[in-house]
Amino acid sequence: MTAAPGPGRVTLGEIAAAANVSVPTVSKVINGRSDVAAETRTRVESLLHEYGYLRPQRRSRRAGLIDLLFTDLSPWAVEIIRGAEEAALAAKSRIAVSVIPSEQDADRWVRSLSRGRTDGVILVLTELPQRHRKRLAELHADLVIVDPVGQPDPDVPSIGAANWAGGLAATEHLIQLGHRRIGTITGRPRVLCSQARLDGYRAALERAGIEVDPALIAPGDFHYESALEAARTMLELPDPPTAIFAASDVQAMGVYEAARLNGLRMPEDLSVVGFDDVPMSRWMSPPLTTLRQPLAEMAALAVRTLVSGDSADFNHRVELSTNLVIRSSTAPPAR
Amino acid sequence: MTAAPGPGRVTLGEIAAAANVSVPTVSKVINGRSDVAAETRTRVESLLHEYGYLRPQRRSRRAGLIDLLFTDLSPWAVEIIRGAEEAALAAKSRIAVSVIPSEQDADRWVRSLSRGRTDGVILVLTELPQRHRKRLAELHADLVIVDPVGQPDPDVPSIGAANWAGGLAATEHLIQLGHRRIGTITGRPRVLCSQARLDGYRAALERAGIEVDPALIAPGDFHYESALEAARTMLELPDPPTAIFAASDVQAMGVYEAARLNGLRMPEDLSVVGFDDVPMSRWMSPPLTTLRQPLAEMAALAVRTLVSGDSADFNHRVELSTNLVIRSSTAPPAR
Repeated sequence: MTAAPGPGRVTLGEIAAAANVSVPTVSKVINGRSDVAAETRTRVESLLHEYGYLRPQRRSRRAGLIDLLFTDLSPWAVEIIRGAEEAALAAKSRIAVSVIPSEQDADRWVRSLSRGRTDGVILVLTELPQRHRKRLAELHADLVIVDPVGQPDPDVPSIGAANWAGGLAATEHLIQLGHRRIGTITGRPRVLCSQARLDGYRAALERAGIEVDPALIAPGDFHYESALEAARTMLELPDPPTAIFAASDVQAMGVYEAARLNGLRMPEDLSVVGFDDVPMSRWMSPPLTTLRQPLAEMAALAVRTLVSGDSADFNHRVELSTNLVIRSSTAPPAR
Repeated sequence: MTAAPGPGRVTLGEIAAAANVSVPTVSKVINGRSDVAAETRTRVESLLHEYGYLRPQRRSRRAGLIDLLFTDLSPWAVEIIRGAEEAALAAKSRIAVSVIPSEQDADRWVRSLSRGRTDGVILVLTELPQRHRKRLAELHADLVIVDPVGQPDPDVPSIGAANWAGGLAATEHLIQLGHRRIGTITGRPRVLCSQARLDGYRAALERAGIEVDPALIAPGDFHYESALEAARTMLELPDPPTAIFAASDVQAMGVYEAARLNGLRMPEDLSVVGFDDVPMSRWMSPPLTTLRQPLAEMAALAVRTLVSGDSADFNHRVELSTNLVIRSSTAPPAR
């Protein structure tokens, strides 16, 4: 990458003059070098954005490497990696997996990326601070977001699943079995996919003429412990639910343990539906009825988008469908 | 990398003459190029090995990338990736994850690696065909094996866990709770770690003066389905076990389901101990007592070995200790 001027726009000299720095410093910022003071980098980058400086063409030779970024490796990370890896292998590329739980880790990752090469970055993140999104956007690599749970950046292509339809299908399945007292344990409430799944649950109840009971809606955080606690509380209500829709498979595991601790058999005394269809869900006892999120397909689509170089033309939000997988954790209510 | 002669040994010209090919062809083989006929490659490589030709020094500039290779992404793959990734991040490196379930995939992976760069390869494989081990050994990268379950190649550093001691500790825990009828479902029998865990089980029984009953030893394959079937058979014996030691957490899940299908409560009617301590084991219902394999530490040690460049000096077999994690799936027998 050279410090050639952007096509027909502004020269590095003009940027350097506006930022009151040297041309080599501007060049360093463009090339992602770390030996630039943070304040200087910020000033130069603002000007680069402001002037619409276009980065020179990316290296024509592919690095043969796509970066896959997580904030944590949850059980469904395996499915994402599997899907990404299969698509990458087909494209004669490799997948670099990184986990950046903290801002400090993200800083280190960004520094290591600046030294290495990449054909693109896939973010699989529950929450990404604005500062890091900005920093990633400043890298030369194309960016695709898989399963964004917050408000996706409209400038970045993103691939998600049909969460509302999934919540609807999970709840309709329970209604069709004859359940009327149906609880739900949501994901982190401020996260979009949680809201969508909850709205799908509400819509199914309303369409069936069942009143939505706020006592049967417990806010969760996608984790086991809070789901266990919420389910125990719910099962001790004077009029407890006969079925629970958990907004993730891991949360469904917490509901299983709550049922066991309360002496309830499954599915006789309590039906449970999860969300995700992680590999372990078929090994739960009883095997879990759940909404299959096409995690591997979502990741594969992200890889193919980056490999093809089409991310700029990509429809900026794609949602793949979710499917109900019926196993042994759901049955008609006994009472 | 140049076609310089190996230090004080044999020249490429001598190898070429012996193989009846040109020097550039020998050079191509050494450099891992794919445009060499398979038969020629094999002949040249045999001679390179035979003559003890030493490869030139590796590129001094680090690629900042370590390859992590699986034959499949089982539930414990997440722990391996987590450990490798943390150690890599600390060393300002990235981890490339590849899954090569078939020989064909391995071929594609090797080809993609030949074009890319790597600072080393970590194999996490249940079984690796000799042809691929050979092919990997021919690459320039250093190699470390994590958790080899077959006979480790004495020429390759390997990092495993103390399987015999784990089998012993699992079984002694059950004996101390008062169990006398203790079954086990092994891993794939021809695999070394399965044999070691089974021998630990046998040793614990013998030390406690309990006769080993062949009816209580079922060969498994590390997978859920066969464990479910084996446990159902075992639980229907005239004198069934009151406790089962499963040689993996996934197999323990099969035992849970067998207990449920047979109407047994856990841990009242049946105690279960697993092996691995994958993240999900704490979310099983009841939470699983298991032998913790330090998977993340094993992977981290492999990364540090490669990053330090010490793999040649590495003690060729390291076993990290396993630890009993007591949760709620084990209790004194009711009868």
